[in-house]
Amino acid sequence: MRPSGRTASQIRPVTLTRNYTCHAEGSVLVEFGNTKVLCNATVEEGVPRFMKGQGKGWITAEYSMLPRATHTRSDREASRGKQGGRTLEIQRLIARSLRAAVDLKLLGENTIMVDCDVIQADGGTRTASITGACVALVDALTYMRSKGILKANPLKHMIAALSVGIYQGVPVADLEYLEDSEAETDMNVVMTETGKLIEVQGTAEGEPFSFEELQELMDIAKHGLRELFDIQKAALA
Amino acid sequence: MRPSGRTASQIRPVTLTRNYTCHAEGSVLVEFGNTKVLCNATVEEGVPRFMKGQGKGWITAEYSMLPRATHTRSDREASRGKQGGRTLEIQRLIARSLRAAVDLKLLGENTIMVDCDVIQADGGTRTASITGACVALVDALTYMRSKGILKANPLKHMIAALSVGIYQGVPVADLEYLEDSEAETDMNVVMTETGKLIEVQGTAEGEPFSFEELQELMDIAKHGLRELFDIQKAALA
Amino acid sequence: MRPSGRTASQIRPVTLTRNYTCHAEGSVLVEFGNTKVLCNATVEEGVPRFMKGQGKGWITAEYSMLPRATHTRSDREASRGKQGGRTLEIQRLIARSLRAAVDLKLLGENTIMVDCDVIQADGGTRTASITGACVALVDALTYMRSKGILKANPLKHMIAALSVGIYQGVPVADLEYLEDSEAETDMNVVMTETGKLIEVQGTAEGEPFSFEELQELMDIAKHGLRELFDIQKAALA
Amino acid sequence: MRPSGRTASQIRPVTLTRNYTCHAEGSVLVEFGNTKVLCNATVEEGVPRFMKGQGKGWITAEYSMLPRATHTRSDREASRGKQGGRTLEIQRLIARSLRAAVDLKLLGENTIMVDCDVIQADGGTRTASITGACVALVDALTYMRSKGILKANPLKHMIAALSVGIYQGVPVADLEYLEDSEAETDMNVVMTETGKLIEVQGTAEGEPFSFEELQELMDIAKHGLRELFDIQKAALA
Amino acid sequence: MRPSGRTASQIRPVTLTRNYTCHAEGSVLVEFGNTKVLCNATVEEGVPRFMKGQGKGWITAEYSMLPRATHTRSDREASRGKQGGRTLEIQRLIARSLRAAVDLKLLGENTIMVDCDVIQADGGTRTASITGACVALVDALTYMRSKGILKANPLKHMIAALSVGIYQGVPVADLEYLEDSEAETDMNVVMTETGKLIEVQGTAEGEPFSFEELQELMDIAKHGLRELFDIQKAALA
Amino acid sequence: MRPSGRTASQIRPVTLTRNYTCHAEGSVLVEFGNTKVLCNATVEEGVPRFMKGQGKGWITAEYSMLPRATHTRSDREASRGKQGGRTLEIQRLIARSLRAAVDLKLLGENTIMVDCDVIQADGGTRTASITGACVALVDALTYMRSKGILKANPLKHMIAALSVGIYQGVPVADLEYLEDSEAETDMNVVMTETGKLIEVQGTAEGEPFSFEELQELMDIAKHGLRELFDIQKAALA
Repeated sequence: MRPSGRTASQIRPVTLTRNYTCHAEGSVLVEFGNTKVLCNATVEEGVPRFMKGQGKGWITAEYSMLPRATHTRSDREASRGKQGGRTLEIQRLIARSLRAAVDLKLLGENTIMVDCDVIQADGGTRTASITGACVALVDALTYMRSKGILKANPLKHMIAALSVGIYQGVPVADLEYLEDSEAETDMNVVMTETGKLIEVQGTAEGEPFSFEELQELMDIAKHGLRELFDIQKAALA
Repeated sequence: MRPSGRTASQIRPVTLTRNYTCHAEGSVLVEFGNTKVLCNATVEEGVPRFMKGQGKGWITAEYSMLPRATHTRSDREASRGKQGGRTLEIQRLIARSLRAAVDLKLLGENTIMVDCDVIQADGGTRTASITGACVALVDALTYMRSKGILKANPLKHMIAALSVGIYQGVPVADLEYLEDSEAETDMNVVMTETGKLIEVQGTAEGEPFSFEELQELMDIAKHGLRELFDIQKAALA
Repeated sequence: MRPSGRTASQIRPVTLTRNYTCHAEGSVLVEFGNTKVLCNATVEEGVPRFMKGQGKGWITAEYSMLPRATHTRSDREASRGKQGGRTLEIQRLIARSLRAAVDLKLLGENTIMVDCDVIQADGGTRTASITGACVALVDALTYMRSKGILKANPLKHMIAALSVGIYQGVPVADLEYLEDSEAETDMNVVMTETGKLIEVQGTAEGEPFSFEELQELMDIAKHGLRELFDIQKAALA
Repeated sequence: MRPSGRTASQIRPVTLTRNYTCHAEGSVLVEFGNTKVLCNATVEEGVPRFMKGQGKGWITAEYSMLPRATHTRSDREASRGKQGGRTLEIQRLIARSLRAAVDLKLLGENTIMVDCDVIQADGGTRTASITGACVALVDALTYMRSKGILKANPLKHMIAALSVGIYQGVPVADLEYLEDSEAETDMNVVMTETGKLIEVQGTAEGEPFSFEELQELMDIAKHGLRELFDIQKAALA
Repeated sequence: MRPSGRTASQIRPVTLTRNYTCHAEGSVLVEFGNTKVLCNATVEEGVPRFMKGQGKGWITAEYSMLPRATHTRSDREASRGKQGGRTLEIQRLIARSLRAAVDLKLLGENTIMVDCDVIQADGGTRTASITGACVALVDALTYMRSKGILKANPLKHMIAALSVGIYQGVPVADLEYLEDSEAETDMNVVMTETGKLIEVQGTAEGEPFSFEELQELMDIAKHGLRELFDIQKAALA
Repeated sequence: MRPSGRTASQIRPVTLTRNYTCHAEGSVLVEFGNTKVLCNATVEEGVPRFMKGQGKGWITAEYSMLPRATHTRSDREASRGKQGGRTLEIQRLIARSLRAAVDLKLLGENTIMVDCDVIQADGGTRTASITGACVALVDALTYMRSKGILKANPLKHMIAALSVGIYQGVPVADLEYLEDSEAETDMNVVMTETGKLIEVQGTAEGEPFSFEELQELMDIAKHGLRELFDIQKAALA
């Protein structure tokens, strides 16, 4: 039995609020239950130095948790003077995932930077970030087309992400903090709306897991991700 | 004529939403028009090293803008590896102001840390932060009393803050970004509900201002601050 | 009664020694009693990136205290690896004040950087810095004219700064350390020689202060600043 | 056809040289073809602050590439002043994997720190690091038992790691740099000698991969990992 | 012929002004011609962590140049966020030299920190620093004895330092900037008043130097250092 | 009697293994007994900004110890976020020495960066680094000539370095750690194969040393350095 009473494969209520703030070219508040992340996409002319002259665009991301997004306050990274390993790992994952959704050649020499700031955390902040960031990215691309910056739509397919894990011996979808902190295995899956995989990151937090459990977790993830694509589509409609 | 059609002394609609997030002991979203700041107060046992053994508490603050709170994206301070001078200046101001509202002896050897994170900026983020942070502080103090951490209420008086300035030659209250970026003089005033001053910071951005103009700005500030105290009281009722 | 026997409005003996060091284009040792600050102005061709192409110049400042300028040694900021909030706040204030004294268009695309290094501290280091830096700035401008870098004098008016405060219930001018550390209110006022205000920064260190006290402090400041302008003029004669 | 002429599932020649340096409690040079990593395990009394008083030990890791381990020189992280995201991600992976091999309670309040320094890189440095670090860890545990620091052997099972990927459309094992830089999918698998999974990290570098391809990659990884366990056993014999 | 008209072995006029600032336990302005360094010695109870419990004291030093101590302004290290290699090298040299002058056991578990801040530079700042710092150290030791912190005088012997070099083919003493910047060899010698060596650091800036030239430079250094000891003695008399 | 049974002037067995790694333009493992340093020379087009437009090349160096190169583990500098003073001092010494071996004009606007990474430390790592780095430098220059980057050989003469010191009252050559940690005087000498001096750095760790002892140390150094030049020549043959 899950703390929330959800079934093993049931994800939390997910909402995607577009235009959440007024300045960004794409601004989406994504909520997976009590997990709330603000995803702001910024369009900038030009690309980083290592990409110059290739006629291709770039997509990057930054991730941060507000210090009191969590049960106990964590130090502010700006004040400590560096971003932690977890932060860097997550923002690299978000950026890689978003780049897999876009034809960088069609983007031209432009950069889209997506900021994912966690307002409130209750498990699954990185997968919520990716799911929301993709919608903010679409809004930014629409903005670019409306301004004549882009001629064709560089979006190859939507992407979404879901966490799955083994909680009390049972594979479950979309773990909230209470489950996550006790889970034996924790896995994040990033998928395209066409059912292909972008990222699979599974970690045994307690006991190692079997090849069969990996298979089960992948199945449950695929199922939940289908729902997320429907929610994204509805939000963009 | 002000861009918003407001009169010279008219402040923007101000809302204070308590319990905006679920983890912090005090959590207030403060809005001054389009300026939105999330103020989270965290209660921690103990005090910083330099305060130890004095039987007194401590209140401190951190301030940050989300990178895309503004018209164009600004670098994330965590990623640059240090907080800028403006950030440090503002969070020192917020902390000093809050400490002036509280009898630190009655707080015991406990620390309250208030995080002010600007979700959306349209001028006056530091004064909105102080005004919201004071309400979050009150909620944190109430929490402490409910838990038996405090015996008496250490709050001496509410505080609130307002920006005033000279815009197109006229002293006006609560400048929004459009006004702020053109103002000749910019002043931030922090006041107690008993009508005394905590901080006055006036800066000539363009032409120097006269002693008389300082007087006028102080008058207009006092008037607007009275309104803010009413709004705080209503929010806490 | 003040520790020094001074009257409430009496400032300390102030001296301005020009050409204190031999390399800088302007080099002034300013002394307010035991407070001694070396202000070196450096002229550099070009402007920072954000100012380029506007045909205007730039003035900036850096402030530092020698580690043992004070009663007890404070950590060297270069060794800690970052400048503290107080330092950044002060050098921002100095730079803003100096820029208000100069017509940046007449400066052309040149930068003047003023370094204010506190050799010995006894209260009022930031206001002494501004007062001395303005003289160093004038010497640097003279140097630029002598070299043909400037055609017209960009100086709009001299500026000077003074600290005032409420000590034992009485508004006094030019607080030394003993007074400063006990003062209930501390205020720094930057004024032009034409009697207009550049900056007003008042802080209640203990009890909040009234609007009337603000008025009295401003009066006492104006009086002391007049004296400072005479001393500057004599030094430049 | 692979550049090296290897079959799809064939791993490179792997050697594990124990006691490679003379000071560390465990010191192993691991070579996967031209990839060479020095893994030094250090035993230290006590545990980090967040682990104190739990009667448990801790295992952590640091990873670094010598600047010229690669085709072109990369900046030295010590000189740039911070470790990059890739480095942090890898050393977090190594440490998590090693902790999964050990019963931390049996380790007592001791720390083992494993340094993985890449002398020469030709693909697969993180998986080579884990494979070699596990042997260095075993040597460090043996040292601890010989010194009477440990009463029982805390090793639960050996672990090893292998990279697999899709190169020119075909799933292959143990990619060298030439393959890695062109691979469409890159996956790192950490397994126990008992055939269970510790970590699975798959990333689509080019085209997304299917659920079936994930399955194939897992199969090929399992096969190669079995060989690695034999090589580890031989080295420890 | 030297630019100053000095003979090869002639040092510049050297002055040592004690009690130059009022807060430090030892405060000496040392001048070697136009080179001016303020040496402040601070006495602190206790020793750094790595020295604790040995019943011995510690002496350390920090060195810095004011940004405009030189012909062209150099960046402020506090603002760049780190001390450069040259600075660290010099302050390590000063500290080692001072420790060689003192019996650390007689110092008890106390620390003396000497800050050497270069007000104006014209060559030889590190040797001037050592020469002046030793006098400041003596004053700090006298202070400690007067306060009853020390029972015996821990000073073993005075130390002084001098730069020598090969300028236009001729070994000369106490190079000023004009000579230093053209010198083929630059050597710094730290000696005790008893005629023994603490440090010898010779560097070929242009052509390598012979073993015979090393000998000549040592002779000329010894001669100049004898003068410095006389000047120190006179200053302390 | 020395711990190793060596005579006073006897250096340890020295080996120079060229092409130790496969990517660098020059790659030498240098061993002085148990001290092992990997010296990798990298050729890069262009020069640092401060050298541009002079038609001259640049040679620089970086030095690092693997954390467990020593008896007890030292912190990784990349992880602490800055290089220590000792590291900066050593890499400045290596770079200065290498530059003295080369005619920078003949190098053209190219940079050679030599990385010296200490794999295992047993005293004398900086002198071993210089001795090995010079061979790596020669290999890099040969590479540059073979690629047509250089027309003439810019090498002026080989350089080598040796540590000497006073151990138990006796001047000895090439101190290993056991001797080094007890030595009263420690001296590093960098010499050209033509018998001239590049650097002499002598430090009294315990008792000050006499001018005569300096002479004896120089003699013993010269003798050992002759041997090192023979070993370099043999390695390059």
